[in-house]
Amino acid sequence: MAETLEQDLTQQKLKEVKSALDSGMFIHVRRILQEMDPSDVALLFESTPTKGRAVLWQLVDPDLHGEILEELSEDVKDSIIRLMDPELVAAATEGMDTDDLANLLRGLPDSVYREILAQMDAQDRHRVEAALSYPEETAGAIMNTDTVTLRPDVTVDVILRYLRLKGELPEATDNLYVVNLRDELLGQVSLTTLVTANPSATIADVMDTGAEKIPADMEETEVAQMFERYNWISAPVVDDRGVLLGRITIDDVVDIIREDAEHSMMSMAGLDDEEDTFAPVLKSTKRRTVWLGINLLTALMAAFVSNLFEDTLAQMATLAVLMTIVPSMGGIAGSQTLTLVIRGMALGHIGDSNSRWLLGKEALIGLLNGLIWALLIAAVVAVWKQDIRVGAVIAFAMLVNMVCAGASGVMIPLLMKRMNIDPALAGGVVLTTITDVVGLFAFLGVATWLLL
Amino acid sequence: MAETLEQDLTQQKLKEVKSALDSGMFIHVRRILQEMDPSDVALLFESTPTKGRAVLWQLVDPDLHGEILEELSEDVKDSIIRLMDPELVAAATEGMDTDDLANLLRGLPDSVYREILAQMDAQDRHRVEAALSYPEETAGAIMNTDTVTLRPDVTVDVILRYLRLKGELPEATDNLYVVNLRDELLGQVSLTTLVTANPSATIADVMDTGAEKIPADMEETEVAQMFERYNWISAPVVDDRGVLLGRITIDDVVDIIREDAEHSMMSMAGLDDEEDTFAPVLKSTKRRTVWLGINLLTALMAAFVSNLFEDTLAQMATLAVLMTIVPSMGGIAGSQTLTLVIRGMALGHIGDSNSRWLLGKEALIGLLNGLIWALLIAAVVAVWKQDIRVGAVIAFAMLVNMVCAGASGVMIPLLMKRMNIDPALAGGVVLTTITDVVGLFAFLGVATWLLL
Repeated sequence: MAETLEQDLTQQKLKEVKSALDSGMFIHVRRILQEMDPSDVALLFESTPTKGRAVLWQLVDPDLHGEILEELSEDVKDSIIRLMDPELVAAATEGMDTDDLANLLRGLPDSVYREILAQMDAQDRHRVEAALSYPEETAGAIMNTDTVTLRPDVTVDVILRYLRLKGELPEATDNLYVVNLRDELLGQVSLTTLVTANPSATIADVMDTGAEKIPADMEETEVAQMFERYNWISAPVVDDRGVLLGRITIDDVVDIIREDAEHSMMSMAGLDDEEDTFAPVLKSTKRRTVWLGINLLTALMAAFVSNLFEDTLAQMATLAVLMTIVPSMGGIAGSQTLTLVIRGMALGHIGDSNSRWLLGKEALIGLLNGLIWALLIAAVVAVWKQDIRVGAVIAFAMLVNMVCAGASGVMIPLLMKRMNIDPALAGGVVLTTITDVVGLFAFLGVATWLLL
Repeated sequence: MAETLEQDLTQQKLKEVKSALDSGMFIHVRRILQEMDPSDVALLFESTPTKGRAVLWQLVDPDLHGEILEELSEDVKDSIIRLMDPELVAAATEGMDTDDLANLLRGLPDSVYREILAQMDAQDRHRVEAALSYPEETAGAIMNTDTVTLRPDVTVDVILRYLRLKGELPEATDNLYVVNLRDELLGQVSLTTLVTANPSATIADVMDTGAEKIPADMEETEVAQMFERYNWISAPVVDDRGVLLGRITIDDVVDIIREDAEHSMMSMAGLDDEEDTFAPVLKSTKRRTVWLGINLLTALMAAFVSNLFEDTLAQMATLAVLMTIVPSMGGIAGSQTLTLVIRGMALGHIGDSNSRWLLGKEALIGLLNGLIWALLIAAVVAVWKQDIRVGAVIAFAMLVNMVCAGASGVMIPLLMKRMNIDPALAGGVVLTTITDVVGLFAFLGVATWLLL
């Protein structure tokens, strides 16, 4: 994790901009911003607290507003759009990709949204409304409509002349799509094929008819998995009659892949994927407080369990000193299993065919690691507290809790998935509750029974 | 997280393969495998316990060995290569991309490695040795050498005729590179430009000279950030004299982006990025045991702190019952901050210019959330234990620990980065140690002072 050159540069720019802002040198800041790539300006906004963003935004060249907005994460984008007049937002959206524009519009208040649509020409409006008609996070919502289509019966030479007349192609174009009169997708021709094929061949001769088509209602996560697995750069999207609707390009998929991969980590800490690190304090406090409340309930539940053994604790304070060790180790072991299973499920590795094997494996790992650390903790306690019996009890509790942690780490996410609960979000809380309760019962319960 | 179609299909195939294997129908399995795409077969291997993999591998068409190996994760690939004769490995590597081959060779025992190199033709061997000369996880190690190069003084028409003679282009080719006689990179020409430009124009007229070049020693994480930020499909790699060495393509970058994003989540649970979910029990046990040992130390440290207050606990068992609540809440609040900061650092959002602001923000969130839950827990304890003084003490401890958790969540990863320690791996342990120790001291210490 050494600081990279790229990050150094951003941080340097950030410092420069910050000190220029502090000393009121707005013209200087404007000049710095003009020299930067829009995606670097976006990074600058992501790295700036909300207040600073408002001032900075005034200094950005309005021609670049659209490009910068496209690169921002959900939360930051929203906070900036709230600062802008609807007409300015409408102006900024000119020339945006359909999918980015639709995505932007989804987040806007109704009045702004309608004003922007009203200012577009009929064709653009039609395209955006089509994109908006697909549910969020499906192929239809992330596709672009900027496909170049061909008929099968023309020759490569004719197409090359047509493209020369056209003069340019949409970004990330690697394939042109071949459609019939009803716009049904027949196949695709790569640019590579166009430049290497015999000019007198027809498109029908050289097109690839076996390429996969993405149904418009496929979930974006699944689209991303297919891109990743088959190393695509773009892929065509079709409706249920096979009519070409648009295409999805790798740059949009890369964002989905990162978000998907980040989703589990953020959810496990009870955070929103798009959480803005530099959001205002009150907004962040509100978002996190629910999660803390839920966790307070689990902490109280553990307290209620130990409360059952209050008499035991009163008679042997040593047990109070030691009682946190077993639940803590169970929580760690369980989290390891849980994390592995959540990742395995996201990658599509875990299902009915192998979950029982995995349950056995993780329980066995719990048993083996339990044995190792049970013996060690028994020895430590026997020496420290000069009491072999307490050592034996803590070793027993450790063993039980570690096996239970391994098994729970597999079963909890599988059960949650079946109940349509996100295991990355809720799994950890349930797991810790189990390892706390089992650990305390095993330790304090057996201690009460054997030692008093 | 609804089960997707794609995952359903894999799990279905997996079940079919498993039951066919169980009943010894090897010919049937062989047929199923033949019908599958190599990347789907790779997924099947990722989802199968190690023993099953050995049997399955015998049934895979040897012609597909290379393609399947390319798609497997590190650990799984290693476990399969260990099963193969060196000659078979050598045969499987034919036609592999240079970067994938180099990556494969890095993991192999020396004898196998030398045997494979010996079986290659001189040109291939030279290319692979060049790739191996760059340190792992740098641009040089992940680049391919299959670039198509042009001279600046020829016309577009000549190039088009040359490409037609050549007949095909390497995968994911979107740009051709223009070099001088010393192989120094002068610029690039996209396929889009080639098909749209005037055929009589020279390459020098139409080439893009402003495109960024990647130095061979740039870290792969930084390469991935650049691809993500600038929406590239491929990018040229040059040495320090500007000589073109190869190119990096988006499909390799996608893997790096996923690994980077997963790295934090896996490290936070003390797991290896490439951890194989279906590895043998003993291997997994060994890998996880160190992490549990480290965490046992922190649990013991917390126990030593409560041990200081053993007399207090002996006199008031209620304190023993309640003493886990404050450390637990501190741990949760601190993890939220830590997760956000680790992600922010990975995305390049956090540095000197804004870390102090962030420290203030997170401490303030800790204070506000601390206030909310301190009041609530005080009320709960006052009612439950009929003791307002204990309620007041736990509220005070909660407040102190939450502020401390927020501040630690920012400071720990920043300090660790400066010391070149991976905060995703070590941050959580240090954080919990702090929130445990501070939480217990604040609660038991103040209780001892005020209540006895």
